[in-house]
Amino acid sequence: MPRIAYLNGQYVPHGDAMVHIEDRGYQFSDGVYEVTLALGGRLLDEDRHLARLGRSLAALDIAPPLGEPALKVAMRKLVALNRLPDALLYQQVTRGVAPRGHAFPKRPVRPALVMTVRRFDPAAVAARQTQGAAVVTVPDLRWRRCDIKSVSLLGNVLAKQAASAAGAQEAWMVDTVGVTEGASTTAWIVTQGGEVVSRQLSQSLLPGVTRAVIADALAPLGVRFVERPFTVAEAQAAAEAFFTSTTSFVMPVTSIDGQTVADGRPGPVTRAIQAAHWAHVRAATGRPQSPR
Amino acid sequence: MPRIAYLNGQYVPHGDAMVHIEDRGYQFSDGVYEVTLALGGRLLDEDRHLARLGRSLAALDIAPPLGEPALKVAMRKLVALNRLPDALLYQQVTRGVAPRGHAFPKRPVRPALVMTVRRFDPAAVAARQTQGAAVVTVPDLRWRRCDIKSVSLLGNVLAKQAASAAGAQEAWMVDTVGVTEGASTTAWIVTQGGEVVSRQLSQSLLPGVTRAVIADALAPLGVRFVERPFTVAEAQAAAEAFFTSTTSFVMPVTSIDGQTVADGRPGPVTRAIQAAHWAHVRAATGRPQSPR
Repeated sequence: MPRIAYLNGQYVPHGDAMVHIEDRGYQFSDGVYEVTLALGGRLLDEDRHLARLGRSLAALDIAPPLGEPALKVAMRKLVALNRLPDALLYQQVTRGVAPRGHAFPKRPVRPALVMTVRRFDPAAVAARQTQGAAVVTVPDLRWRRCDIKSVSLLGNVLAKQAASAAGAQEAWMVDTVGVTEGASTTAWIVTQGGEVVSRQLSQSLLPGVTRAVIADALAPLGVRFVERPFTVAEAQAAAEAFFTSTTSFVMPVTSIDGQTVADGRPGPVTRAIQAAHWAHVRAATGRPQSPR
Repeated sequence: MPRIAYLNGQYVPHGDAMVHIEDRGYQFSDGVYEVTLALGGRLLDEDRHLARLGRSLAALDIAPPLGEPALKVAMRKLVALNRLPDALLYQQVTRGVAPRGHAFPKRPVRPALVMTVRRFDPAAVAARQTQGAAVVTVPDLRWRRCDIKSVSLLGNVLAKQAASAAGAQEAWMVDTVGVTEGASTTAWIVTQGGEVVSRQLSQSLLPGVTRAVIADALAPLGVRFVERPFTVAEAQAAAEAFFTSTTSFVMPVTSIDGQTVADGRPGPVTRAIQAAHWAHVRAATGRPQSPR
């Protein structure tokens, strides 16, 4: 099957999906994005992703390239064209193409919408969930509006590369208060008292879709959710730690900067949250089968 | 004359200069750039720009796409093909095209090099220099590595747009210490004691090429250069203020946040520095004629 991309209303072979060099996404990182899973053809947490996309666009004063009904149709059509059992849908909207200048173009330009799809393997995530992941910490070098899901991601790139170079799977970024979030995930700990902690939302971190799903799932589990900062030292000494994202689901953290968290194995609270998240995935999409 | 762009070794019509949507410049702002003037076909301060390009690339561990001699040949060829008396040359290097993932690609990819040229009018700059410019101030929201001339420019975009919306020509960005720099320029003041002040270089601001040219020119003018932070209040109460860049040269600041600086006219120290910069431009390029 040829891989198909969506490019401003056209469905084109992935390799032919090109944008002009004066697209402001390329020259100014003047754009936003979302990553949504399509499992068995059904879009997981679609409304939350589209609401966040709308917030990101509004924050940058970029007009939505399509109305929401038309966008949902295009998303489904692209997923269908790619004929994958389970897929990752990447959407990027930029301010559009204009002669280079920092300020917004004086004459309104048409926002650019690009979408790509690639294979996603839930079973591989489930396998990684039983192993857990190593995390390193790095200074949070990013800008002050990380609540906007923009493509101004160079700080995230350098953080993730630091993790990769250290043989770790994620980098947690640290500001003057504590851990903000991972390079592409939300950071969580479970205290020795059994409380689940993640930093409160602010302009310093992204309002994660999976974060919101987990937050909703905690009360039914009888687990108290506390939104506050935590330090690296507190995380290293925590009962459990994990990170969440659209593509990593609920991933146990087994070490932080080389220091093993608890016994280095996924803990009971993390496993309960994993199970609740899998239940959410199955309820929303009918797929995949339980990981074990 | 058709406008020609350079795209990875090819000289193509500007409108045909396209990059793939998985170019990391587009999805991660994982790239750097330079803007250099070509006046009468001669590249102004070329070695300083190329040295800075090399530093930016090294900071991000991106391999130079061409050796310096080959790059200089390509720059000259592109300028010549566009047949403009005076031109602005934009160069962008990104890490290249790779399947999306935050960390650097595991398999090395070829960096992408894009260059465009457009008309530049030194006489128009000279005319603006007699009028001066209005500046507004905004919080500096950018990341912590503004010494790298990257395309991760969304903070600069929002700052410049704030200036544009206020009817000003530039936004000066302010951190906890004072003014860092303009959205696309270096910020300077002249104290009541006649010292010229600009913030010391650090990871919070770009090492401006024109800043370096001016710094060299101050001693022969008998003017003391002090590198230190200054606040907005100090700038508003200064004897003179100006900003510098490759494309705005030495531009007097006549007001800051609506408050007139001194008598609102270009001051004597600023005018002396303008003249020294024009002399540098003429010595380097033979063009243009003195503005008046």
